[in-house]
Amino acid sequence: MLKLEQLYSLVDQAVSRLEWPVEPKLLYDPLRYMMDMGGKRLRPRLCLVSYNLFKDDIGEHILTPALALEVFHNFTLIHDDIMDNADIRRGVPTVYRKWNDNIAILSGDTMCLWAFKMIGQAPKETLAKALDLFTKTTIEVCEGQQLDMDFETRNDVSLKEYIQMIGLKTSVLLACSSAMGAVIAGADDKACKALYDFGYKLGIAFQIQDDWLDSFGDEKTFGKKIGGDILNNKKTWLLIKCQELAREKGKDCLLRLGNLLEMNQSQGQKKIEAVKAFYQEFDIDSLARKTINSYYAEAMMSLRECGLDLDQVRQMETIASSLLGRNR
Amino acid sequence: MLKLEQLYSLVDQAVSRLEWPVEPKLLYDPLRYMMDMGGKRLRPRLCLVSYNLFKDDIGEHILTPALALEVFHNFTLIHDDIMDNADIRRGVPTVYRKWNDNIAILSGDTMCLWAFKMIGQAPKETLAKALDLFTKTTIEVCEGQQLDMDFETRNDVSLKEYIQMIGLKTSVLLACSSAMGAVIAGADDKACKALYDFGYKLGIAFQIQDDWLDSFGDEKTFGKKIGGDILNNKKTWLLIKCQELAREKGKDCLLRLGNLLEMNQSQGQKKIEAVKAFYQEFDIDSLARKTINSYYAEAMMSLRECGLDLDQVRQMETIASSLLGRNR
Repeated sequence: MLKLEQLYSLVDQAVSRLEWPVEPKLLYDPLRYMMDMGGKRLRPRLCLVSYNLFKDDIGEHILTPALALEVFHNFTLIHDDIMDNADIRRGVPTVYRKWNDNIAILSGDTMCLWAFKMIGQAPKETLAKALDLFTKTTIEVCEGQQLDMDFETRNDVSLKEYIQMIGLKTSVLLACSSAMGAVIAGADDKACKALYDFGYKLGIAFQIQDDWLDSFGDEKTFGKKIGGDILNNKKTWLLIKCQELAREKGKDCLLRLGNLLEMNQSQGQKKIEAVKAFYQEFDIDSLARKTINSYYAEAMMSLRECGLDLDQVRQMETIASSLLGRNR
Repeated sequence: MLKLEQLYSLVDQAVSRLEWPVEPKLLYDPLRYMMDMGGKRLRPRLCLVSYNLFKDDIGEHILTPALALEVFHNFTLIHDDIMDNADIRRGVPTVYRKWNDNIAILSGDTMCLWAFKMIGQAPKETLAKALDLFTKTTIEVCEGQQLDMDFETRNDVSLKEYIQMIGLKTSVLLACSSAMGAVIAGADDKACKALYDFGYKLGIAFQIQDDWLDSFGDEKTFGKKIGGDILNNKKTWLLIKCQELAREKGKDCLLRLGNLLEMNQSQGQKKIEAVKAFYQEFDIDSLARKTINSYYAEAMMSLRECGLDLDQVRQMETIASSLLGRNR
């Protein structure tokens, strides 16, 4: 088993070896632009680490499918940014802003298709299973994005529905990444499923933590301004949980929260402070952290089902804790 | 070997058996809407006929991948209609018009992913080859669409570039459809390639005929108003050929054509008549027909490379001639 740093470095090298066609320029420039934006390459890392639990022969047959996960993820970002009217990503203009909608639609489509071309490089023996997992997952990611958009116009989203939505939009691709390595290595179904569950629970923990950071994080480590979700009345775990608790406490309480949400965006910092104070009243901060820990613990439990030895479990624990920004 | 009518009927039945998820409603309603719009199901027909040249065991293992070609084609229509600002398709509002851009982007994405899920149903023995062909083709279709958009802002598109563009945008999917049946049936490379070439040449003939019909067709059989391409100065085979010939004849002649193209859309019928008269002056009508016939003949030549018997060649000739609306 290689060290995590070695595996991460192999992923980075593979990313830098990627070559896209030059023409048509307006099709492939945005694709290169997205891939050059950087990021932690979390999904291919997970995939490669998972493969290496079972096999040592690391080559293009696993690196290319691993990168497919990153390419697909970047495709979803291009299209999501159009749909969400997002102007900035990782500090630079989004594709549809830098070029235009049409370019973003078509280069996104192309990127998605390249992801399938890259998954297609998996060894023949495991291709059918790898493709099955990938198509199922990618369809679910789109379903999750649609649910997220549906939620924007709804005021009765339950916590259960929210978890289902982030499960589809965020977790299944992490689950797929974590299972894909095992699938391509030809691991048995039980191990693949356990690694899938590990990635899934980790993804839920990760997303709720992202929600938490937006309200209670540190601007320096979070990398963007605190309170964006609050300003936009975004239906996060925090807000939905708070709505549920306020509803239990009675009409007046729910009305108070409703009034806070109706505060104008121009009241900026004042709104953020007021909503955060309301959250504190209901202990949302610590409830969120408990929930994150609980999903994290479930992810760790899944690892025990893989039939891995202690070193292997440690390897996966390390990647999990770094994903959640925890120092072990 | 089954009769064409039997094969077509199997395709229609398979289309009507298709079941899409119900939720999220805004994701899958547009997908159903597109699939219910009808159409000749040309691509799955080609695929099934091609399979049946080599194998008689027609079941879901070939019908589902055959339908993937239709599903992918419909996905491209959803996204193309956004990019082209097209309001109407087959007499009804396009998806982005009936819903909105975001719905059209995301349900299109989902449709594309389902196409891969369906290709994934090909038998394991031929899956790698089928997936290879499909991904290569679908990427090329996007490249063709980008070239088509690039051409809108260029005035120096050559006939060679035009043929390359329609080759990618239209022909490769017909070529892929025609080869896919053979690939999934496990036919040898030579036969697969010959059927690919057959579909490719046929596609070029089909597209140039489509260009020709827009200027010289009969409104009743064409199904839409004559002259739409002329009004929009669309770079069709006719216009590009005419530009080339006018250029050869000298500056004055090219200027005359330029003036016609600058006529306002409001001059509608007058512009159509004037451009058509100019086309006639250069014999574009008959040059186009000759070129269509020549590509058609090349398609027929490719058939001879497949190692098929006379009945089998006749089967493919029949589907080719019906595609071009010819009675044999």
